[in-house]
Amino acid sequence: MLKKKNSYVVAVAGATGAVGREMVAILDERKFPVAELVPLASERSEGERIDFDGKKWTVKRLTKESFSGVDIALFSAGASRSLEFAPAAVEAGTVVIDNSSAYRMDPEVPLVVPEVNPHALARHKGIIANPNCSTIGMIVALKPIHDAATIKRVVVTTFQSVSGTGKKAVDELARQTTALFSFKEIEKDVYPHQIAFNCLPHIDVFLDNGYTKEEMKMVNETKKMMEDDSIRVTATAVRVPVFRCHSESLNIETEKKLSADETRALLAAAPGVIVYDDPGKNLYPLAIDVAGKDETYVGRIREDESIENGINLWLVSDNLRKGAALNAVQIAERLIA
Amino acid sequence: MLKKKNSYVVAVAGATGAVGREMVAILDERKFPVAELVPLASERSEGERIDFDGKKWTVKRLTKESFSGVDIALFSAGASRSLEFAPAAVEAGTVVIDNSSAYRMDPEVPLVVPEVNPHALARHKGIIANPNCSTIGMIVALKPIHDAATIKRVVVTTFQSVSGTGKKAVDELARQTTALFSFKEIEKDVYPHQIAFNCLPHIDVFLDNGYTKEEMKMVNETKKMMEDDSIRVTATAVRVPVFRCHSESLNIETEKKLSADETRALLAAAPGVIVYDDPGKNLYPLAIDVAGKDETYVGRIREDESIENGINLWLVSDNLRKGAALNAVQIAERLIA
Repeated sequence: MLKKKNSYVVAVAGATGAVGREMVAILDERKFPVAELVPLASERSEGERIDFDGKKWTVKRLTKESFSGVDIALFSAGASRSLEFAPAAVEAGTVVIDNSSAYRMDPEVPLVVPEVNPHALARHKGIIANPNCSTIGMIVALKPIHDAATIKRVVVTTFQSVSGTGKKAVDELARQTTALFSFKEIEKDVYPHQIAFNCLPHIDVFLDNGYTKEEMKMVNETKKMMEDDSIRVTATAVRVPVFRCHSESLNIETEKKLSADETRALLAAAPGVIVYDDPGKNLYPLAIDVAGKDETYVGRIREDESIENGINLWLVSDNLRKGAALNAVQIAERLIA
Repeated sequence: MLKKKNSYVVAVAGATGAVGREMVAILDERKFPVAELVPLASERSEGERIDFDGKKWTVKRLTKESFSGVDIALFSAGASRSLEFAPAAVEAGTVVIDNSSAYRMDPEVPLVVPEVNPHALARHKGIIANPNCSTIGMIVALKPIHDAATIKRVVVTTFQSVSGTGKKAVDELARQTTALFSFKEIEKDVYPHQIAFNCLPHIDVFLDNGYTKEEMKMVNETKKMMEDDSIRVTATAVRVPVFRCHSESLNIETEKKLSADETRALLAAAPGVIVYDDPGKNLYPLAIDVAGKDETYVGRIREDESIENGINLWLVSDNLRKGAALNAVQIAERLIA
């Protein structure tokens, strides 16, 4: 697997995308021991220059031959590119940390959030999967609650920002907003409906059971990472006109009773979680405040009086950082620790 | 009570506000038999002119003496004005339909959605309360499900538009949006935090139990109108950067099993509900489409696999029309029927 070194050759596949750029920035910010950065992208972005560690690095085209000498590759170039190129990387001796959905439910591939199931890393066979952004934000808050009181069921509704779709969607929200204020016709390229001043209950494709793929990711990835199929999750995933950060409304039913104060104390002590909960002072997590933060911010913690043992809460996490790039880099940090 | 006539003197208290204007427009649109319109407002709006039935009507100042000869008064001037002026109106022989929260939970006052509990109107003593906008939108869809399968519990998360707060909030969202696109500082007058490109889990004031008043309205008003305290509801109410219409994500647990198809059929046959549910064609209710519509639009209807008898759905209703002005006018129509 990964040999211990003083520094590592690190490739970023999809280096010019929204998450790829964040990956490079976070490697820099956290002083990951990078001997050489290998930014990879499609033909279109070949030759672009990426800033890292005070130098410029030239983007190369992603091919099956890109991985010779690469120790770690962070992939964020979409599921089909992961399926095409990750096996070649593994063959070349590279450890792949894949941000796409391609390998997440593969029983041979660990799906890891370092605060939740770091032990799963030990059994990787060259590929480690990074969970879906809306699941990562949620599971760091669910884990301490599950450990203390055993979660029976979660009902979650998400408020997901357009950056989760990518850079084009960020541009689309901005363009539609300015068009509406200029009394111009809006253009729809990325989403099937207007996203400006609207909420779309539609993220990723619809499946036969009426759920979207995004909703089922939250159900299935949670079970896999908790290593507990008895946790029942039902999800409604909604796109909102917000640029960055996913907010989520959670209703959690536990075996053991937890008071709001006990829940607050548990979460305050949990890694990767910040309790931000003082409604009397109008303090609760907000997308605009959590942008750029590493932790899941949790507030509006209150007992659900409609069931014996229930908690409602509101959480916000930065979908590009913890929801994608940061979690991938944290996995890499664990691998070299 | 109300004497049968060919046409009625109708006062609108708060006639220049967002809901008041909608009330006047809906009286006109539905050809309510108005002999005379009496638009009332605070001193500030005195003398303004309101269009109705092809004529201009001058806004008068709301006082305790405003109601002599008035048959029906639609109030939408805030709870404190309702408490101050509604008793004087009743004393003058006027039937008051109050859109504020002032009398909703008063056991002497019927709280009515005509599609849900029209029989409650019979026992009014001069005041009839119009429910909260987020409750009205939801309860027209819950009623047929409760009748067919007995609802045990509802977990609801709302996506509420700024028009629910009033005209000033609509202006604030517009102003903040343009300021952000002009790289100017945003101003916050109505909400404690930026609403543009953000979601605020805070509607109305916070109570001691950690819930907002808005959330508890959904719990308590639902029980009162269903005349069934065994229906358990837990709510998270969220303000989103949308101008008009409230969207809601509902998780509903029933005594009797309902399939998604059975739920669709029930809702399609229910008064005040339109099923708009064809995800394969990207058809689901959207705030921008439901604006100006009378019905609650329901889509994303699917079985909740996390419990024995559960349904998830997404609904959208126009908070100014059915959520406020239309429901009040429909109550008036029932009174004169």
